[in-house]
Amino acid sequence: MDSSCIFCKIIAGEIPCYKLYEDDRVLAFLDVGPLAEGHVLVIPKTHAEQLDALAEEDAAAIGAVLPRLGKAVTAATGTRAYNVLQNNGEPAGQVVMHVHFHLIPKPADAAPNDGPPGSGLGIHWPTGKLDPDAAKVLIKRITAALD
Amino acid sequence: MDSSCIFCKIIAGEIPCYKLYEDDRVLAFLDVGPLAEGHVLVIPKTHAEQLDALAEEDAAAIGAVLPRLGKAVTAATGTRAYNVLQNNGEPAGQVVMHVHFHLIPKPADAAPNDGPPGSGLGIHWPTGKLDPDAAKVLIKRITAALD
Repeated sequence: MDSSCIFCKIIAGEIPCYKLYEDDRVLAFLDVGPLAEGHVLVIPKTHAEQLDALAEEDAAAIGAVLPRLGKAVTAATGTRAYNVLQNNGEPAGQVVMHVHFHLIPKPADAAPNDGPPGSGLGIHWPTGKLDPDAAKVLIKRITAALD
Repeated sequence: MDSSCIFCKIIAGEIPCYKLYEDDRVLAFLDVGPLAEGHVLVIPKTHAEQLDALAEEDAAAIGAVLPRLGKAVTAATGTRAYNVLQNNGEPAGQVVMHVHFHLIPKPADAAPNDGPPGSGLGIHWPTGKLDPDAAKVLIKRITAALD
């Protein structure tokens, strides 16, 4: 636990939350600043700032519950589409420095990239093209770092 | 396997990919239309269109490998920040109808919401406010659907 972390305080019961789900490793609750109805946060009970610092078991436990939560949220809201988003670091939009996965319903008639409150996550997709030679170098570097 | 699905064909080896990681349940490879250097796709080997249709074991296996991949991609690219994104349904931006998690590095100096190719995921965040009474109703509906 990090005593300055708001999510750790929620896990400890020091700050209330709109709880949806809890197990030994995971807590899920409604986001109080929702992008759409049914915006859920899924967090590990152990404090880690970024996903790369999270234990494999905690990350697996979050993964395991996402399909169930996706099913329940779509059933409860009637919105079939949704985004799962997890931001690491301030440049990537992370605000609370405790790993969290957003599950954000996307209304079928909402603008894809920039809508009003309630319209879900807005996405911009600045696609590039992967150069085959650069890809080979990158594969070597990433797989070396994986071992 | 879905015979019309490009990711199933990649898993079957019928279409090549820039492979980074593979285990019994999961395959990870470079996205050929990267939003930034080191843009990775992580997919289950079993075909499911949306996350809510994926088996818990497959989702847990994806979750388990994300921290390792995050660590390796940040080490290999030197970009500490990244977004993990998984889109469900066309309104949410899903293009290939086989569950996939994007791991997208976010350059520290890139525009947060709408930059040129290579600038990573652009995000718009149309925040609303959760009404406490509406939250109680929503919790009942979601938790009922969870059971």
